[in-house]
Amino acid sequence: MDKVKVAILGGSGYTAVELIKLLLRHPGAEIVAITSRQAEHIADLHPSLLGRLDLRCEPFDPDALKAKGVQVVFGCLPHGTSMESIPPLLERGMRVIDLSADYRLRDVKVYEQWYKETHHDQKNLAQAVYGLPEVYGDKLAGAKLVANPGCYPQTAILGLAPLVANKLIELTGIVIDSKSGVSGGGRTPKLSFHFPECNESVTAYAVGTHRHTPEIEQALSDVAGAPVSVIFTPHLMPMDRGIFSTIYATPTRAVTEAELVELYRSYFADKPFVRLRTNPPATKDTTGTNFLDVCVKVVRGKVLVLAAEDNLVRGASGVAVQNFNRVFGFDERTGLM
Amino acid sequence: MDKVKVAILGGSGYTAVELIKLLLRHPGAEIVAITSRQAEHIADLHPSLLGRLDLRCEPFDPDALKAKGVQVVFGCLPHGTSMESIPPLLERGMRVIDLSADYRLRDVKVYEQWYKETHHDQKNLAQAVYGLPEVYGDKLAGAKLVANPGCYPQTAILGLAPLVANKLIELTGIVIDSKSGVSGGGRTPKLSFHFPECNESVTAYAVGTHRHTPEIEQALSDVAGAPVSVIFTPHLMPMDRGIFSTIYATPTRAVTEAELVELYRSYFADKPFVRLRTNPPATKDTTGTNFLDVCVKVVRGKVLVLAAEDNLVRGASGVAVQNFNRVFGFDERTGLM
Amino acid sequence: MDKVKVAILGGSGYTAVELIKLLLRHPGAEIVAITSRQAEHIADLHPSLLGRLDLRCEPFDPDALKAKGVQVVFGCLPHGTSMESIPPLLERGMRVIDLSADYRLRDVKVYEQWYKETHHDQKNLAQAVYGLPEVYGDKLAGAKLVANPGCYPQTAILGLAPLVANKLIELTGIVIDSKSGVSGGGRTPKLSFHFPECNESVTAYAVGTHRHTPEIEQALSDVAGAPVSVIFTPHLMPMDRGIFSTIYATPTRAVTEAELVELYRSYFADKPFVRLRTNPPATKDTTGTNFLDVCVKVVRGKVLVLAAEDNLVRGASGVAVQNFNRVFGFDERTGLM
Amino acid sequence: MDKVKVAILGGSGYTAVELIKLLLRHPGAEIVAITSRQAEHIADLHPSLLGRLDLRCEPFDPDALKAKGVQVVFGCLPHGTSMESIPPLLERGMRVIDLSADYRLRDVKVYEQWYKETHHDQKNLAQAVYGLPEVYGDKLAGAKLVANPGCYPQTAILGLAPLVANKLIELTGIVIDSKSGVSGGGRTPKLSFHFPECNESVTAYAVGTHRHTPEIEQALSDVAGAPVSVIFTPHLMPMDRGIFSTIYATPTRAVTEAELVELYRSYFADKPFVRLRTNPPATKDTTGTNFLDVCVKVVRGKVLVLAAEDNLVRGASGVAVQNFNRVFGFDERTGLM
Repeated sequence: MDKVKVAILGGSGYTAVELIKLLLRHPGAEIVAITSRQAEHIADLHPSLLGRLDLRCEPFDPDALKAKGVQVVFGCLPHGTSMESIPPLLERGMRVIDLSADYRLRDVKVYEQWYKETHHDQKNLAQAVYGLPEVYGDKLAGAKLVANPGCYPQTAILGLAPLVANKLIELTGIVIDSKSGVSGGGRTPKLSFHFPECNESVTAYAVGTHRHTPEIEQALSDVAGAPVSVIFTPHLMPMDRGIFSTIYATPTRAVTEAELVELYRSYFADKPFVRLRTNPPATKDTTGTNFLDVCVKVVRGKVLVLAAEDNLVRGASGVAVQNFNRVFGFDERTGLM
Repeated sequence: MDKVKVAILGGSGYTAVELIKLLLRHPGAEIVAITSRQAEHIADLHPSLLGRLDLRCEPFDPDALKAKGVQVVFGCLPHGTSMESIPPLLERGMRVIDLSADYRLRDVKVYEQWYKETHHDQKNLAQAVYGLPEVYGDKLAGAKLVANPGCYPQTAILGLAPLVANKLIELTGIVIDSKSGVSGGGRTPKLSFHFPECNESVTAYAVGTHRHTPEIEQALSDVAGAPVSVIFTPHLMPMDRGIFSTIYATPTRAVTEAELVELYRSYFADKPFVRLRTNPPATKDTTGTNFLDVCVKVVRGKVLVLAAEDNLVRGASGVAVQNFNRVFGFDERTGLM
Repeated sequence: MDKVKVAILGGSGYTAVELIKLLLRHPGAEIVAITSRQAEHIADLHPSLLGRLDLRCEPFDPDALKAKGVQVVFGCLPHGTSMESIPPLLERGMRVIDLSADYRLRDVKVYEQWYKETHHDQKNLAQAVYGLPEVYGDKLAGAKLVANPGCYPQTAILGLAPLVANKLIELTGIVIDSKSGVSGGGRTPKLSFHFPECNESVTAYAVGTHRHTPEIEQALSDVAGAPVSVIFTPHLMPMDRGIFSTIYATPTRAVTEAELVELYRSYFADKPFVRLRTNPPATKDTTGTNFLDVCVKVVRGKVLVLAAEDNLVRGASGVAVQNFNRVFGFDERTGLM
Repeated sequence: MDKVKVAILGGSGYTAVELIKLLLRHPGAEIVAITSRQAEHIADLHPSLLGRLDLRCEPFDPDALKAKGVQVVFGCLPHGTSMESIPPLLERGMRVIDLSADYRLRDVKVYEQWYKETHHDQKNLAQAVYGLPEVYGDKLAGAKLVANPGCYPQTAILGLAPLVANKLIELTGIVIDSKSGVSGGGRTPKLSFHFPECNESVTAYAVGTHRHTPEIEQALSDVAGAPVSVIFTPHLMPMDRGIFSTIYATPTRAVTEAELVELYRSYFADKPFVRLRTNPPATKDTTGTNFLDVCVKVVRGKVLVLAAEDNLVRGASGVAVQNFNRVFGFDERTGLM
């Protein structure tokens, strides 16, 4: 089988470089183009790529990408910009896996409420598949537009899916307390990510207003078949990468930990990237991998779910490759194990 | 006024060295003895003290301490050991401020349930004052035995006190999600605190079993005048010091954020070490200080309290000095501002 | 004695906030003004100051400072800007302790060569005292303009002073390999100080071109009474603060370690902020202090000097207070122990 | 071609887990046994391996390894222990790549002087190949016993090889100032690697006595064809992994930077794992890779070489796989790109 020809839109950020490293190891993918206006050569943007990928950055030009035979484009642009760049690619028959938030929320009003921006591409939004393979896997084969999921939402959705699918917890008031490494904030220098500011410190941010809230709720509502609402609080940790979510839910009936562990084991049995753990996971054990580690506990009548992942791999570029595998018919683990 | 003659029991740990640094700046305290078997000179144990305190460590000998005129002893020994060492000091008329957990829980059965150890000093336990000055301040003047509070509990108790004192939240099911720097684990090398294990990682530990749980509940029940129960989950962060607690409570009636901010402002008006913040606090802004920073929010019908402190100062040695000030009649800010 | 009225020019950076914290503890200083255009209140710039200093920032106005009775101004502005702001202060009779590099190099040509900028205030440069108290202490009493020394140079100058003063090492080709925490780079966000870039990484920068090179050479040449030249290589470490310099020199005759230790002990006997150590110092043992820790070794015929300090205290704001003490006749340790 | 059957001796440390991860990706290797007495399952020792390698640890038994068809054993035991375990493996016809120091120094007297231990296996020492492929590559094909090189030495040897091979620098008094992450110290908890001790700190250790000194000198003397002696000073950095060496040498004649860059380019042209950089390398750009990044500068008449690597990959387990590739006739990049 020929390698799938791949392009990356927006090569300067952390998800792009992570994606490049993953694709370089993938036996079925070939990176043929990377767009960026910030440097001439990709190794100028990311010195770690010196000697690994010899490719010049190019300006964004859908026709040029088409002419190179690009079959799929990974979008690593910010939200807002994504929905401007993606329609001409789809028109030219290229598939798109978009790592931005632009095609994640089905309801335009919800998008506009949380992102404070008008949505300009409702047409393609209608056909976008939310790319969380463990939940929406059956829609991914051959998909034209995949909305790659957010980093935080994956811990919450997969952490809670067995419970809401089985109506074992109350669907409102679920508390999701998440802790993230700094790379989640992107590569643009800002005071809050300046080393001497965020090192040796922990703080919460976007309390009650974080844009991943409706994304979590949309997917969990799908799983539950009923509206779910959550209290989601993200925190900034002094480390490069990793997300740890501690989730507190109220069971709808008396449950035992043993029963829940069994439920989780069964639910994740055919999901190779979710690892069930007996002890609380540590983000470090997921670093550089596409694993999402989950542990479920019962404490004083509440159900606690602890979930950990690498925010740049499982949380972004790794799951994008998993989606790529699903779209093009590779085994979903290809290039990720 | 003459300086109060002070001794420190157990000079080798982090709370001891922090306490020494604070006391060296205190105009009303003089360190006359430090006990430890681990080194000859205190600067051998703590190289940072070279040139700041020229004192040899000595074995524990209550009579020798008495002979030196020691008026108050700060206990920096582990729980279990503390209750063996403290009775002979009290018998000889020295006051004690104990940083261990041995005299914090009034109910011996609760102690034995959580600490898995028999309590050997119920007599003195009966007269111990729980040393959280903002709550138990009126009992501290002249106290003979002060049980210095735990690091986590202070964020939870002070963070929730205005709410439970005013019966504004439900008293069960309160979620306390706490994040701590590694120094909270003490100075004894262990795999879980080995740099390459805990650096660049976040994990939860002692889920549902942490010993600070009953301490939080005892104090909050005192404030509420009714039993309080909490779900307390501590997490380990890759940083030296700092505790951040995110607290989720269910209001007993509709509340506005403005109303709660006003309540907190009024409650803490005469408490110089509690700073009310409009934005989420950051542990770094409390580092090296005795401040406990608090922020209260209403999110989707839940009350969120965010509280930050330095676990070694406010969480241990700073509040110990604050207790010392109260016991001996100094202004409570002396040596701490 | 009345407190000396102090103003701070440029309140937004790390040296300013560190200086404020030190001056708040100083019994002989009173901060009456802080200039900054970046925020209204000093606690908006530095949330850690909430509840510690209630002062509004003001625009730079020499007459207004004079009217407030300001006796000494600490300059925390960048080089280039400093030499524009300082002359009008000196004209109005205020003393200045300048933390920038503008008045450190006596030879304007050297300044212009390394800083690539024209020097606009040669008049005041002529009267500036280089504020390294251990070397230039006798010129500081009553000085009108003190050029506070750079962070790296202090480790190199004090580390080598006993050797060059006694002509024990060759004066050219001295290797100074320095490692610094990120706060040394200032508070302005840049990619190289963005957390996910510099965390978990070590690199060298400004190899052969760092501006502290001529400053080190000027002071060491003064001590030696002959020209000294060095190879100075700074490195960036993933930590907030601390400088560690490893210095390699060639002795002019056979020396023993014991002999050098004795020489250092004697040289630093009356210098309370230099601590001689038997083992290699660690930056952490100097954190938050004005100490500079030094260790001297002989390895295979070379002399090695290891020197550590806190770059924000000893390296900037602490030595500024030490200079303040010298200028105004306080004991040099006041407010620093 | 059938996969080579591999065993790992001593599975509990950081080099073992890194090696396992690399071998899991290697198309020509199959891990059939791991010895350790510390846990039952390899994922109990290293939770990151859960779901990636399902293998029980076994006691060390050369006959059992032989019976499993093991063709090559990677030794991840400490020095001293290695030379006890390796002879029976060689006797049974298994090849060994030993990551300890036991077979690195050809001269037993030098070993005993630096390691303070008697060498018990001089017989096999005589046939050991020092496994730095860029220098000793022609001896590796089919080697029976490979002494995998130390982490620090590789930066020094490869950084200096072009210079000493061409007699461009003086062979004595070379200064090697190295900075390492904490994982280099191994996985056994010790106070010096306890997070709150080494985090936010830099220090030097083993000044003048580090055991990698003779290893550096042996290899560089081979390259030079004349005795080389160095001053090697290791430092501990607050990060997980990465080594950065700053090397200072005195040229034997006037040299230009351009000339040296050309020399280095040519010397490393056929060495795919050495990347020549124009700017100082950063350890982070080598993390997780087998690259060793080098930059050469001329500063004030001295030659400076800056070299960076990942101490666990290039510095240990990656170069071990590179050696494995050489021994068994794979392309040396297999499994490492």
